[in-house]
Amino acid sequence: MDEGSKNQSRIRPLHLRLPATSANLGPGFDALALALDLYLDVKAREAGEFSITATGRGPEICGALERNLLLDVYRGTLEANGRAVTPLALDVENGIPLGMGCGSSAAVRLAGVALAAHFGSLGWTREQILAEATRLEGHPDNTAACWMGGFVAACWDGAKLWAASISPPENWRALMVLPEKPLATTASRAVLPESYSSADVVANLQRVAVLTAAFATGRADLLAEAMRDRMHQPYRREVCPLLPALLPLSGTDGVLGVALSGAGPGVLVLIDSEEHANRVEELVRAEARSIGPVEVLLCRIENRPATVVSYQSIPS
Amino acid sequence: MDEGSKNQSRIRPLHLRLPATSANLGPGFDALALALDLYLDVKAREAGEFSITATGRGPEICGALERNLLLDVYRGTLEANGRAVTPLALDVENGIPLGMGCGSSAAVRLAGVALAAHFGSLGWTREQILAEATRLEGHPDNTAACWMGGFVAACWDGAKLWAASISPPENWRALMVLPEKPLATTASRAVLPESYSSADVVANLQRVAVLTAAFATGRADLLAEAMRDRMHQPYRREVCPLLPALLPLSGTDGVLGVALSGAGPGVLVLIDSEEHANRVEELVRAEARSIGPVEVLLCRIENRPATVVSYQSIPS
Repeated sequence: MDEGSKNQSRIRPLHLRLPATSANLGPGFDALALALDLYLDVKAREAGEFSITATGRGPEICGALERNLLLDVYRGTLEANGRAVTPLALDVENGIPLGMGCGSSAAVRLAGVALAAHFGSLGWTREQILAEATRLEGHPDNTAACWMGGFVAACWDGAKLWAASISPPENWRALMVLPEKPLATTASRAVLPESYSSADVVANLQRVAVLTAAFATGRADLLAEAMRDRMHQPYRREVCPLLPALLPLSGTDGVLGVALSGAGPGVLVLIDSEEHANRVEELVRAEARSIGPVEVLLCRIENRPATVVSYQSIPS
Repeated sequence: MDEGSKNQSRIRPLHLRLPATSANLGPGFDALALALDLYLDVKAREAGEFSITATGRGPEICGALERNLLLDVYRGTLEANGRAVTPLALDVENGIPLGMGCGSSAAVRLAGVALAAHFGSLGWTREQILAEATRLEGHPDNTAACWMGGFVAACWDGAKLWAASISPPENWRALMVLPEKPLATTASRAVLPESYSSADVVANLQRVAVLTAAFATGRADLLAEAMRDRMHQPYRREVCPLLPALLPLSGTDGVLGVALSGAGPGVLVLIDSEEHANRVEELVRAEARSIGPVEVLLCRIENRPATVVSYQSIPS
């Protein structure tokens, strides 16, 4: 029996299940993302002091009690809303690769805000939780896809979010290709220019439009062209060497399209069916050989919204 | 009996029906367009010399035998493909406003190319006709929507076209609001800048993505925000004074969104149902009063592809 249960907790425990997300999808810089079936699972209950049990990927990062993004967001949200910080006992099982462009920070920020909304009894709607996490993240693509599921188009004006989710064809799959070394989003953003030529803007606007329509209508034949980008990928080739190695696979047999996943360094390879996964994985490993060892994860697209369940505490 | 029938025409007459299109839809510069139920109808048959009977809008322009865009495209396409120029007797009934941003030049170029493909026996597919008209037009939005129908996202690399069509919710309607004086697209393009800030590009990419997803999923609530633009509309306010007058209607009761139609000067007002047409038309006329007289056309969205029918000549 810990202190939480001795205190006769007034707030029910909470279970959160938040998917990985691959943002940008080529031309959709800060606008598009896809939810994948790799999850951050967080179980939280009131306790006398903070504790974390972390399993899965990055347990030393997810389990740290200092400089932990989830705890920082949780505490910050409660303090900003004038609530006491209820200590939590957390059980974190993380399946999202960290620092790879798989949306781990978006999932963690959503988790922190959702925990604060719940244990601080803020009375927030799902929309409010998403908006607050998006404000902290600074861009809406990963947070909206993580929270809503599916292929998500999102728009953010600094305070309000507009987003729509589309369920892609059931047979489409993603191969997430991850190098050994992670990369901070800030480092990957620093290489981008401050302005773009009209021709580059039109090229990306056209491809974002066709890409979104292709996901909505299941037009696999359009993806290779629609995932071409002139806004961030050309500038990130140096810091994300897997990208130029894998881009030539786009449009080859079974490969629908290739894009940098978020700010990298991971690369998203969309395939039209699980049947092609092994063959495409072999191609990917062959192309990546000169870069170094890679991890390849076969993912389904997660079309369901993030799970938020509060439940009766199970006596331990 | 004219010379065409005396010659025992080897090529059957052709009937083309091409819809008006409203391009850009706010943020989708050169990328998005919507087909509307205003048509250019062309009936053509082989003849001893060129003749045109023109009715509908702009008969003096559509019926001219010199400096006629349709004839120029027809002749040019045949000559570029090494074919003799078969003279045609044309019956043109035009319902598309000219010089208003309603896609009249795209419809005319498609008509010219389709006539050349038919009477020159070029053996072109529908895709080839669309690609050639897009090459002549220089951008794919109007031509693709005119040829395919519906809400169309299109991407063009100077030689090849990729496009997807989506059928919007059945009850959505468009009010085309037209000032008295037409405007050349070239004049409206000259006011645009050559480069854009990263913030403006992201804003438009997000809105193009959300706009396309909103049309695909019928999310009327997203349109007002998703039709906001930072790429061309802010620069065209001066040459298209109807736009700043009508933009404030966007998102008001029954008005889904407002955008410059193509390069203007016409303005597209999307409404969620025909029931609101009269009321919104009154609002539009009130807002436009300071600009001058306007014509307001209530349009349905045309979801069918352009009609191309060859038929047996009817003896006259």
